[in-house]
Amino acid sequence: MQSDLPIFELSYALNTFYVLSFAILVMWMAAGFTMLEAGLVRAKNTVEILTKNIALYSIASLSYLLIGYQIMYPDAAVNSWFPGFSFPSYTDLSAEEAMTEGASISTVGGIFFQLVFVATAMSIVSGAVAERMKLWAFLIFCFFMTALIYPIQGYWKWGLGFLETAGFYDFAGSGVVHLCGAVAAFAGVLLLGPRKGKYGPGNVIKAFPGANIPLATLGTLILWMGWFGFNGGSLLEMSNVNKANTVALILLNTNTAAAAGGVGALIFSKIRYGRADLTMILNGVLGGLVTITADPVSPTPLIALVYGLIAGVLIMVSIVTFDRLKIDDPVGAISVHGVGGILGLLVVPLTNGKSELISQLLGVGVITLWTFLASFAVWLVIKKTLGIRINDEYEYEGADQEECGLEAYPEFTKS
Amino acid sequence: MQSDLPIFELSYALNTFYVLSFAILVMWMAAGFTMLEAGLVRAKNTVEILTKNIALYSIASLSYLLIGYQIMYPDAAVNSWFPGFSFPSYTDLSAEEAMTEGASISTVGGIFFQLVFVATAMSIVSGAVAERMKLWAFLIFCFFMTALIYPIQGYWKWGLGFLETAGFYDFAGSGVVHLCGAVAAFAGVLLLGPRKGKYGPGNVIKAFPGANIPLATLGTLILWMGWFGFNGGSLLEMSNVNKANTVALILLNTNTAAAAGGVGALIFSKIRYGRADLTMILNGVLGGLVTITADPVSPTPLIALVYGLIAGVLIMVSIVTFDRLKIDDPVGAISVHGVGGILGLLVVPLTNGKSELISQLLGVGVITLWTFLASFAVWLVIKKTLGIRINDEYEYEGADQEECGLEAYPEFTKS
Amino acid sequence: MQSDLPIFELSYALNTFYVLSFAILVMWMAAGFTMLEAGLVRAKNTVEILTKNIALYSIASLSYLLIGYQIMYPDAAVNSWFPGFSFPSYTDLSAEEAMTEGASISTVGGIFFQLVFVATAMSIVSGAVAERMKLWAFLIFCFFMTALIYPIQGYWKWGLGFLETAGFYDFAGSGVVHLCGAVAAFAGVLLLGPRKGKYGPGNVIKAFPGANIPLATLGTLILWMGWFGFNGGSLLEMSNVNKANTVALILLNTNTAAAAGGVGALIFSKIRYGRADLTMILNGVLGGLVTITADPVSPTPLIALVYGLIAGVLIMVSIVTFDRLKIDDPVGAISVHGVGGILGLLVVPLTNGKSELISQLLGVGVITLWTFLASFAVWLVIKKTLGIRINDEYEYEGADQEECGLEAYPEFTKS
Repeated sequence: MQSDLPIFELSYALNTFYVLSFAILVMWMAAGFTMLEAGLVRAKNTVEILTKNIALYSIASLSYLLIGYQIMYPDAAVNSWFPGFSFPSYTDLSAEEAMTEGASISTVGGIFFQLVFVATAMSIVSGAVAERMKLWAFLIFCFFMTALIYPIQGYWKWGLGFLETAGFYDFAGSGVVHLCGAVAAFAGVLLLGPRKGKYGPGNVIKAFPGANIPLATLGTLILWMGWFGFNGGSLLEMSNVNKANTVALILLNTNTAAAAGGVGALIFSKIRYGRADLTMILNGVLGGLVTITADPVSPTPLIALVYGLIAGVLIMVSIVTFDRLKIDDPVGAISVHGVGGILGLLVVPLTNGKSELISQLLGVGVITLWTFLASFAVWLVIKKTLGIRINDEYEYEGADQEECGLEAYPEFTKS
Repeated sequence: MQSDLPIFELSYALNTFYVLSFAILVMWMAAGFTMLEAGLVRAKNTVEILTKNIALYSIASLSYLLIGYQIMYPDAAVNSWFPGFSFPSYTDLSAEEAMTEGASISTVGGIFFQLVFVATAMSIVSGAVAERMKLWAFLIFCFFMTALIYPIQGYWKWGLGFLETAGFYDFAGSGVVHLCGAVAAFAGVLLLGPRKGKYGPGNVIKAFPGANIPLATLGTLILWMGWFGFNGGSLLEMSNVNKANTVALILLNTNTAAAAGGVGALIFSKIRYGRADLTMILNGVLGGLVTITADPVSPTPLIALVYGLIAGVLIMVSIVTFDRLKIDDPVGAISVHGVGGILGLLVVPLTNGKSELISQLLGVGVITLWTFLASFAVWLVIKKTLGIRINDEYEYEGADQEECGLEAYPEFTKS
Repeated sequence: MQSDLPIFELSYALNTFYVLSFAILVMWMAAGFTMLEAGLVRAKNTVEILTKNIALYSIASLSYLLIGYQIMYPDAAVNSWFPGFSFPSYTDLSAEEAMTEGASISTVGGIFFQLVFVATAMSIVSGAVAERMKLWAFLIFCFFMTALIYPIQGYWKWGLGFLETAGFYDFAGSGVVHLCGAVAAFAGVLLLGPRKGKYGPGNVIKAFPGANIPLATLGTLILWMGWFGFNGGSLLEMSNVNKANTVALILLNTNTAAAAGGVGALIFSKIRYGRADLTMILNGVLGGLVTITADPVSPTPLIALVYGLIAGVLIMVSIVTFDRLKIDDPVGAISVHGVGGILGLLVVPLTNGKSELISQLLGVGVITLWTFLASFAVWLVIKKTLGIRINDEYEYEGADQEECGLEAYPEFTKS
């Protein structure tokens, strides 16, 4: 078989390059979340949300490298973490070994791809708890989320645990990443309470407009771009005609669902409220993206379009509903990633013959239950010890002063 | 020929990955236009321009998918649109079929690459009509532009219509994309008129400085980056030495023309006005990019440099001239994409033996005439029905309040 | 050997595509530096720093294309520059020639990759001399830096000159790019002096807060993304299993060092100053990136993590120290790229058997000495002729008014 080695090596190299390139796009989503959230909070809390975002990506990178990956992929790691606590060597196979074992990509490349996914889940949390959570409470939760909570449910599905066995289908993480992040955020928000003054007596809901809407728009466009890597890279190989075609369809479906999410929110917001609400359009786009993530392969582009439209409307309704329930989510993250994630998972059986509604419901239930209980426990311990909420005076003055000692826009605002 | 299949599959996969990667860069140009335009308008019209940009990309994605692509590539689509109105299935070929038919890339991947081009043409329009056009008039025009006007002239060239037969050369769209967008914008601007107070009595031209120049600079750098995908991807295959070399030359020429456009505008602005005018440098860069787009393959880098220098100066002169003619184009889009586009098309025969000046003039004339007449008609119908211009009071207060109900920078400005 | 040609062509094409894609990411770093610096200066100096950044990238692209590349790679260029002054033709090899010569990538593609590196070195300078240097003095220095100073020391290492012979190891440019840029900046800062009012009597150091911290954060995240291309692309080929594995490890190590740099600065800043200082975290991330650049191949991810932690702390200490020495570096560029670069070069022998401390010290010494002397001479000549510092009145009013005639944020600030 000597003559097949050059072909094998090229195929392996192409697959690895594709996964690495798309992993870079997923890393870039960290900038998307950062800009989205920085644009939607008030000026006085901007440095703090920037700090949380860059710190969470950094912490997630390290804790998943050292701990989370070993939990999520116990077989894939060179040394399993649980039994021996030995730090993995992160070595790769030689060409001959790789060919013998039928490896399609670099192991280290695959680790890097998984690693950049983790921060996405945590970025969802930072938006929902913005403007009132203590920085260090958030960072401690970040460690537990990315080292334990996310990897354990990730193992159940992608690490070939019991959800995989039960037939739960989640191609790129509507459940494992987005629903998980939204539920962790929801648990935190319940313990944290709404921002001061957000909900007045008599069902009055006060708007706290974001300080820098162009940044929020930029963030959404960065996320849209990065999502091509998120969904497109999740096939993990594309070195033959069939796989390459699949990646092409994934990108077209991803783009179509996002565009339809934006158009759905645009039209619904015009009909319902008489004007085009930009923040709703942005969330509609993101809702379309989250929804198609569960299965960007089996729908045709026309069906992806329909899913996007539904997501765009549903996310708007969800955001309004959460606000009426006085569950304060400054950027709408729980609606986008939670409601969008569940929608995406539940429609999979409509087009995917390998999926059944009962398995999808099981997956939604398990991810939600585990993430809620584990997150709630961690948040609660932090609340009872360090505390999770900044004090009222600092909330009024802005988190930036207390925790960061730096203003985001010292010359533009008078605080 | 069985033994050639693995080579064919790898080649097909590499080509598809290359086209998809570069398509993602072209999609990213949407963020470039959004930031460029958001930076160059005044604060009170910022949310509206953001809304227009994200909505136009969304609408363009859907209308081109459903209608435009079928018109532009009647043979390439699985089902032709015109005769039967059947929605295309967007299926791809199997490996054996692809090899038999000699397909070099995924059909769906090719559709995605074409689709991301459309929004570019429409983004040019949004800049030129900024600060005074009604949101919904713009969005309705967007539908006709991306479903009909752009695809029909695109068909004449890239869909192998009569301009292709006539020998018109336009590698990546100086004419089909940029000139088309600029002419559609020009037709709109004629019917729309200048912003209130822009042109006073006695040839007084008032400057309306952009609110956020760092965003405009970021937008230009995003466009510069995305243009590597725009020009580099237009070869559509790169899986052998000759094609790979060509893509490398395209990127070097594209970068060189852009850099020279910036340097040309820098030096000219210093000599002519005594200082380095950043907005002129940005437009010089963009002018260099538009100019090299017609043929980034046949010039040497030194010639690309010369073209860029000329473009940088010419775009500056054009912007000043349009202003003197009281044709109000807030971001200079008609000059950059129209004048730059024509310059690029007309210099092709100087280095490209397959091109003749007469064919280039024919292409410029046909694209300009068709796009102008069709756009003017659509704009006129919208003007006579819905109206295209926001009322004077709202123009004074800012489009954001009337149409979006949201401020871009609520804490920075006092409006 | 006819049957090997298709394999060779695919390999060449994959390598070329990989290098071009990653070169685009390096070009994107120009946007990163631009946003970082624009965010960290005061509003009144923002347009000038934007102008410097886009002009330096443009000038660097042209001067390196015309002159610098010929000096740095005298053999690689089709026509050597020094003897004949003939402009290179930038032609590529045919498939047969490439195979005979064993070329792994397009020559033009390789030139493009080298070209985008140059601007990085120069971008380091613009940050350090911000808020007080004349625009045209800077641009003239930019020409000499990118045409001569950088290429000559680059030739000594990467052009196979005497530092390469001496065993100096610098994989992606901790020395050749980052240390070189930092030393050139240092020479300029010495001749330029600190900003007015920065250092008061009695060791008082006044803080000049940056005007737009979200932009600085965005810039850092852009640089983080672009660095994957910077380090990952420097292998220059990845078409077999071994090379692909190496690129994967480079990306994982690069990400790990950056994340650890951020975490190191976060923890150190909390312990030392009682709060999380965002600008220190950003510089910690960048310090980690610079440090791992010297050798992202031989350390394990755990070692990369340790290097990043050390870099994060060391850069903070260095920034504070330079400030105490009244060496005014508004963005901390000399610490990040100079101290980080030296650290990265000196730790190489700890993991890399092909490297020795003595050679590393030689490289650090030679790059520092050459760059300092040459830069100091050029800065001095400019100072004695044109002058390098804007006058006091304009420094007080802001460089934007004098040199650019444009305000960055005309509606946000009252100047």
